[in-house]
Amino acid sequence: MAGAPTARDGEIPGEFALIDRYFTRPAAASGAGGVVAGIGDDAAVLRLPAGMDLIAAVDTLVEGRHFPAGSEPRSIGHRALAVNLSDVAAMGATPAWATLALTLPQADPAWLEGFSAGLFELAQRHGVALVGGDTTAGPLAVSVQILGFVPRGAALLRRGARSGDLIAVTGTLGDAAAGLALLQAPPASIGAQARELRARFEYPSPRVEFGLAARGIATAAIDLSDGLAGDLAKFAGASALAAHVELDRLPISAALHAYAAPAQVLDWALSGGDDYELLLAVAPERVADLAAAAAGCATPFAVIGEFGGGGGVAWTSGGRPFEPARGGFDHFARPSTQFTV
Amino acid sequence: MAGAPTARDGEIPGEFALIDRYFTRPAAASGAGGVVAGIGDDAAVLRLPAGMDLIAAVDTLVEGRHFPAGSEPRSIGHRALAVNLSDVAAMGATPAWATLALTLPQADPAWLEGFSAGLFELAQRHGVALVGGDTTAGPLAVSVQILGFVPRGAALLRRGARSGDLIAVTGTLGDAAAGLALLQAPPASIGAQARELRARFEYPSPRVEFGLAARGIATAAIDLSDGLAGDLAKFAGASALAAHVELDRLPISAALHAYAAPAQVLDWALSGGDDYELLLAVAPERVADLAAAAAGCATPFAVIGEFGGGGGVAWTSGGRPFEPARGGFDHFARPSTQFTV
Repeated sequence: MAGAPTARDGEIPGEFALIDRYFTRPAAASGAGGVVAGIGDDAAVLRLPAGMDLIAAVDTLVEGRHFPAGSEPRSIGHRALAVNLSDVAAMGATPAWATLALTLPQADPAWLEGFSAGLFELAQRHGVALVGGDTTAGPLAVSVQILGFVPRGAALLRRGARSGDLIAVTGTLGDAAAGLALLQAPPASIGAQARELRARFEYPSPRVEFGLAARGIATAAIDLSDGLAGDLAKFAGASALAAHVELDRLPISAALHAYAAPAQVLDWALSGGDDYELLLAVAPERVADLAAAAAGCATPFAVIGEFGGGGGVAWTSGGRPFEPARGGFDHFARPSTQFTV
Repeated sequence: MAGAPTARDGEIPGEFALIDRYFTRPAAASGAGGVVAGIGDDAAVLRLPAGMDLIAAVDTLVEGRHFPAGSEPRSIGHRALAVNLSDVAAMGATPAWATLALTLPQADPAWLEGFSAGLFELAQRHGVALVGGDTTAGPLAVSVQILGFVPRGAALLRRGARSGDLIAVTGTLGDAAAGLALLQAPPASIGAQARELRARFEYPSPRVEFGLAARGIATAAIDLSDGLAGDLAKFAGASALAAHVELDRLPISAALHAYAAPAQVLDWALSGGDDYELLLAVAPERVADLAAAAAGCATPFAVIGEFGGGGGVAWTSGGRPFEPARGGFDHFARPSTQFTV
């Protein structure tokens, strides 16, 4: 890093200089390409492959809002990048570079070690280079901006769904909400299934590989961050369609079924949030291709409903009408909102 | 915005839904191009002109750290973008798009009105479209990521200076530090010159036009955010050169001379920070071209020293050695540090 003060032998360097060391890793270490100038200048200089559109998204995690106070630093680092990778996945795009704005109350080396390990492990797995950022003293908050690319005009938009398209979802729903509940009120002893649920909150796996495979097959996609009920309402609204979902088709993990009562399972699956799965629209004649693409990257995949003319979301359970207890996305009740991405 | 709840007649909408309205302006309104999909999807889709490298930087402003508590919201919105535009200017690049991560304690319509006005006025002046972001409840902090572009390989890097290059600076130094002092301890009555100094802190003018004009003439550039002493040390370090500056050549405004004692003027000019001027290296045979480029965009411009072999920064005053009271950039003393950009 240009201009970082050099510690004299045996001297403890300035605390913010210390922080720098956790984040200034050569881009090459991540396997990412296209970094003309990274860390150490006024801005990063990046080279997009030819014929590509740029993808950009930003997401902030605030302590006590998006994760419990005292969360594992490794989990915070992982999640800060994962929630952004999930946005890239929902565009059918390749993630490439990230910047980090980190506000933290003090420079605790053990915390920074864990946080940066969580961030860089996931970055490396997806070939993402950290190319810029800043650190500021203040209440703990992490803002990551992700940059990626997609062939021109090929991005999977929310508005691309057509009437008659099926609605498909990856993975299982509600696990992360159960995991958060377990973190907020830890039981005296914790079994393998509860640990599995907790990991779904602490270490979500963004569906980047499947998002890439779905491009050209699915007609539209959105990532599930606020819960199926709210995000499906957004999805239907963006495509100016009505959505119908049959609750009996929702993919629920064995761990969640074992952990919670059916009504709680359903509430978490619909409105718990933090799933970071993909919700997609696909024409009926292409659904087998999409299922094959999911199988190709070992991604669980289920068809849960279909789009039709009109607006809003209709739910059925065993074919009979159902009204979720917590309906759509409530800006009052949520701690934050992405107004754009 | 997709999925935002619709207010029923006469009903006050959710407070975060209200926030969205301040930031969801059509990209076309800013005059910026290249927005394939902006607000309302999982990520923005952007199209870089052919033959360009992408430029990315991020900067965070935290209340009580980077601006006094209770600052004018319009100034906060202006500064949040200005500090990032200054980074783009220092690369000789064209700014194009920005994302915003806004954390704020409550949704105060008057505050949001002022903040968004300050942000969008400056965005429009520089053809920048806001293409993404999120809002979160929490202590007031603003993180902007700026994206821009520059012809391939033409970015003005910090490391490009050569031995024998002259050191030039735009504008005047120390005004913003005086302005901040005036904001922190407002005098009973305030004259025109004090108002001018205050405006230099509250509404900095990033040197975007001059940065573009300097590309191909200057050999290297850095923006002045932390004060000349610290930033010049970084600049010299990045280019592996020694810098020499003659203090009598520093550009000081009449307003600052009238406001403060000479020793205070010098301290603010060297170490006050928040100038957001450009510091450049230029070969002696090109300095007339750079001066002409500055004149062409009405940017004040002064040569203050030169680079030579070796390392570190040497200061003279009337030809005699001088040691600044506050020397280099001190990571301990500063509230934040950009570890990369």
